[in-house]
Amino acid sequence: MKLISFSTYEGRSFGVVHDQSGSVFDLRKRLDGRFTDLKSLIAADALLEAQGVIGEGKKGDYPLAEVTFEPVIPNPDQIFCVGLNYAEHVTETGRETTENPVIFMRLPASQVGAGQPMLRPPESTQFDYEGEIAVIIGRGGRRITEADAWKHIAGYSCYNDGSVRDWQRHTGQWGPGKNFYRTGAFGPWMVTSDEIEPDATMTLVTRLNGQEVQRATTDMLIHGIAKQIAYLSTFTPLFPGDVIVTGTPGGVGAKRNPPLFMKAGDVVEVEVDRVGILRNPVADES
Amino acid sequence: MKLISFSTYEGRSFGVVHDQSGSVFDLRKRLDGRFTDLKSLIAADALLEAQGVIGEGKKGDYPLAEVTFEPVIPNPDQIFCVGLNYAEHVTETGRETTENPVIFMRLPASQVGAGQPMLRPPESTQFDYEGEIAVIIGRGGRRITEADAWKHIAGYSCYNDGSVRDWQRHTGQWGPGKNFYRTGAFGPWMVTSDEIEPDATMTLVTRLNGQEVQRATTDMLIHGIAKQIAYLSTFTPLFPGDVIVTGTPGGVGAKRNPPLFMKAGDVVEVEVDRVGILRNPVADES
Repeated sequence: MKLISFSTYEGRSFGVVHDQSGSVFDLRKRLDGRFTDLKSLIAADALLEAQGVIGEGKKGDYPLAEVTFEPVIPNPDQIFCVGLNYAEHVTETGRETTENPVIFMRLPASQVGAGQPMLRPPESTQFDYEGEIAVIIGRGGRRITEADAWKHIAGYSCYNDGSVRDWQRHTGQWGPGKNFYRTGAFGPWMVTSDEIEPDATMTLVTRLNGQEVQRATTDMLIHGIAKQIAYLSTFTPLFPGDVIVTGTPGGVGAKRNPPLFMKAGDVVEVEVDRVGILRNPVADES
Repeated sequence: MKLISFSTYEGRSFGVVHDQSGSVFDLRKRLDGRFTDLKSLIAADALLEAQGVIGEGKKGDYPLAEVTFEPVIPNPDQIFCVGLNYAEHVTETGRETTENPVIFMRLPASQVGAGQPMLRPPESTQFDYEGEIAVIIGRGGRRITEADAWKHIAGYSCYNDGSVRDWQRHTGQWGPGKNFYRTGAFGPWMVTSDEIEPDATMTLVTRLNGQEVQRATTDMLIHGIAKQIAYLSTFTPLFPGDVIVTGTPGGVGAKRNPPLFMKAGDVVEVEVDRVGILRNPVADES
């Protein structure tokens, strides 16, 4: 099942995508307003109710092509990103693999949905892509074991961890370069975890203007998804709707010769097989 | 004016402290439920209404001694911490001063209010204090100039940026060691900025079991408060209720010889003159 957050002329809502008819069923309406957003549906462990809505053979509420995608979870309590988690990327940055995952955070204001422009701020020309697989937490928890981790995943999505490289390097802490307003993209939807078996090998590809720039499979992750969940939940409770952005492969623009940065008019895609394609134009922040 | 977030047997609320009578006026009740929390009061720019409540000479709702302090803002959208921002602390860590402030983030789940135990997790014995001054954002904004920064401050508080040092050093990114559950303290209250003139020199003192371990004045900040607001708001919008934890002086426990870490039964205090004293016991997380 594909779940989205979206907006229309009627405001913000969330829904389920019905592939056969190419339409969206509005879950805020269909579930009688009992859930205000996708995070609250996940927190209530009510994904089956969404399944029931499309199972009824009714007509959808909007054509998929007519909704504006919001970030899959527009309002997560916590967004964790894993750095340096594919060997080729570790090598290109001249760093070393660490025993524990490298964790930094993004803020909700740094995100946009599919199709929305990723904004290059006037402060920098070093705006870089990072294609990644996003994990959305379903059931929360603390000190989750690796064996149990898969049961805590609500679904998977695509993420572009857009990075302003010079600001990322201002100091040893990367946060500022990872949190410019509307520089990251998250979507287009979440594919629920019942469709993707635990520890499935997924392929991740990033394209800039149609040209492939990154490719990896999840079996190449240095710190796998279960370990990430175990590590993060050791220090903090994970909450429903939390997002884990699991790491980017080699091939980022900053480490190419010459460097390849994103600029207005570009189109960047992150494709995860069995999930979909996250496509965003790039624009200058005005 | 001193504003607090608190809980009682009736649940969570927020209020204003009336010093003369030692009582708390419950603003959630007194303002007819129009504001659900202190963040929403700040966002509505309605601090004057709080002033009106205590100005009426009425009896308070609870004795101050009987409420449980919550973090001043329990639910900030963004919590930014500034690292390495006093020269003595930069020196003791063997690092160098950077042209731009070192920024990392805390999450709301890592906070407790005054009087609540700061929890040492079973994963570490290296639980350290960091006394700091917290700034609470009033009016939000983006690309705020240093000259305008003071107008965006709702108030000041005390903060103990409790740090699990071995987890902070797991990798180059400090987040995990700065975000263990209930390791940071924020309170007891916010003193509104009308009582503290822009760029006032404030004295910050940390005590562990009555012994002074840190002392500095805000004129010693490497990157001052106005610069912090200008820098942060360059990359992200600041929102009402956001918290900026402005940096810790020299004297942290990890850099003493022998090291001085916090353990169950300790009492740690952060005092900021013109604001107050944040006092917390330390307990083992059970």
